[in-house]
Amino acid sequence: MSNAGLRRSVVLKKRPHGEPVASDFEIREDAIPEAGPGEVVTRTIWLSIDPYMRGRLREEQTYAVAIQIGEVMTGETVGEVVASAHPDFVPGDIVVGARGWQSHSVTPGGQLVKITKGAAPLSAYLGVLGMPGATAYAGVTEICKPKAGETFVVAAASGAVGSVAGQLAKRAGARVVGIAGGADKCLWVQDSLGFDDCVDHRSLDLRRELQAACPNGIDSYFENVGGAVQAAVFDLLNPFARVAMCGMVSQYNEQTMPPGPNLGFVVGKRVLIQGFIVSDRPARMTEWRAMAEPLIADGSLAYREDVIDGLENAPDALTGILSGRNFGKLLVRVAADHG
Amino acid sequence: MSNAGLRRSVVLKKRPHGEPVASDFEIREDAIPEAGPGEVVTRTIWLSIDPYMRGRLREEQTYAVAIQIGEVMTGETVGEVVASAHPDFVPGDIVVGARGWQSHSVTPGGQLVKITKGAAPLSAYLGVLGMPGATAYAGVTEICKPKAGETFVVAAASGAVGSVAGQLAKRAGARVVGIAGGADKCLWVQDSLGFDDCVDHRSLDLRRELQAACPNGIDSYFENVGGAVQAAVFDLLNPFARVAMCGMVSQYNEQTMPPGPNLGFVVGKRVLIQGFIVSDRPARMTEWRAMAEPLIADGSLAYREDVIDGLENAPDALTGILSGRNFGKLLVRVAADHG
Repeated sequence: MSNAGLRRSVVLKKRPHGEPVASDFEIREDAIPEAGPGEVVTRTIWLSIDPYMRGRLREEQTYAVAIQIGEVMTGETVGEVVASAHPDFVPGDIVVGARGWQSHSVTPGGQLVKITKGAAPLSAYLGVLGMPGATAYAGVTEICKPKAGETFVVAAASGAVGSVAGQLAKRAGARVVGIAGGADKCLWVQDSLGFDDCVDHRSLDLRRELQAACPNGIDSYFENVGGAVQAAVFDLLNPFARVAMCGMVSQYNEQTMPPGPNLGFVVGKRVLIQGFIVSDRPARMTEWRAMAEPLIADGSLAYREDVIDGLENAPDALTGILSGRNFGKLLVRVAADHG
Repeated sequence: MSNAGLRRSVVLKKRPHGEPVASDFEIREDAIPEAGPGEVVTRTIWLSIDPYMRGRLREEQTYAVAIQIGEVMTGETVGEVVASAHPDFVPGDIVVGARGWQSHSVTPGGQLVKITKGAAPLSAYLGVLGMPGATAYAGVTEICKPKAGETFVVAAASGAVGSVAGQLAKRAGARVVGIAGGADKCLWVQDSLGFDDCVDHRSLDLRRELQAACPNGIDSYFENVGGAVQAAVFDLLNPFARVAMCGMVSQYNEQTMPPGPNLGFVVGKRVLIQGFIVSDRPARMTEWRAMAEPLIADGSLAYREDVIDGLENAPDALTGILSGRNFGKLLVRVAADHG
């Protein structure tokens, strides 16, 4: 727990080379900020750890501004309002939208979304109901467009995005095949998520096993990992296949990017490959949250969380998600969740 | 000229390894066929030579069936009807739709399209008004979607497809940059096609020259070549860029495909890459022909042809188009064109 009156933040100390390690970060303490006009101060309860965060640690800018040395790490949170200078918020409100690996945040009220208490567990708003869930929703409905009778494949199938993507494709009537790391994850993907099959990417015979799981080829693919998994999937794509490029976590720690696939097949098979980022589609977040809350309440949308306690363990959590150590949506519990 | 009563055909003798050579083919003579019920016999005037033909010579099937040893090579033609058992055609009609490297073809009438004599030179129906023109039209309007203020780049810019693609993007208001092989082609692309700039892909400093020609990056790319040109273009793509994958002629003679680009940029830049083949869109052919005929008549759509005389020279013409030896739409004049 933080001392009363003090805020704890995780800041970037030096840029990681390859795999990030705890010593690339440090804890900084300062006074809990006050709310300026229109601002809201929140106490962080849950912090989300996601693969995209590795990109923020690179010197060069990707689609978002890089974190500078000495800056607080970015990250989605669920928090409780402790002070408000914005008419829409009062202390005790639960909100998403504050960003940062820190015990307290100060945020313009317009960037926060109030959560209806009791509709779902608070942590779900960072995973199945949050950015990862909305990412799955956008990629599946706008790019993959799975149809009955088709085969849909998703990598990192037990993760926050993959688990939702596969369930959505299943609802669309497709044969759904997951790819995940390890027998325990594959078992859960089939038993709890209801995928038709799941292939272990650590298998020595990934290509043959994937082919066996997809006897009619692959009509759409939700890409989260890249590398050898991507190569195996691309070889099985059917004519007119759609590939939603969401991420390539297998290479986020690489200093220099390995070559990729020869794109000749894209012409011959008339494949569509499209990169997307859900933050380009803010309306999808709201739409998805409204759609998915009842599915969480009635149990028809399954999800799994992997919880790590303590803000100081956030750097180690990031290291873990990049190597697939987590099993389910990875969260840091920054303070006790009393619902 | 063929002997009266005899048909000459170019058939595949053995599969080429790497660059096709004349000895991979042979001339076969047989009787000029007669028209069965619903069929039409045509005398070939023009034969189109296109890069895709190399794919037909591979053992493995791509999007179309491979040519077998002893089979007549496939190819679009313009011909004159010499005998008809179909009510819509009479001797003397000029038609497109018969396929084959041969002096005479027999074709179901339903596969033939009659040309209005005098609307445009007959050879134009194999290039700017034919499959290559319609390919450019489909890729530009359905995938690249260039807009005013954007930068559009097309490879093989002086070719049958690229020359039309760039002119269409110019009409849409984009800055249009071509990539072509050699100073003479680049000059023509700028002077006669009206592109804003053209970069010689043989330049030792392709990347820097392309960057100089595209100071605001690249918003859409029409891909015909692959390889080093593709790599240079991909590095300059802007966020939300569109790539129409039409072909990759630089690698058609390769026995094993070289690796391609790491696709990480597709996510970060939200790039769309889409392969397409115009024969999937037959309506586009008709639509384009009707749109483009008046543009040819009034001279507002420029094109260039590279004519080789004699059916027996078709194999050498194919070798040439794969190495960029042609300058403009490559055609074989199989028989005299009297308009």
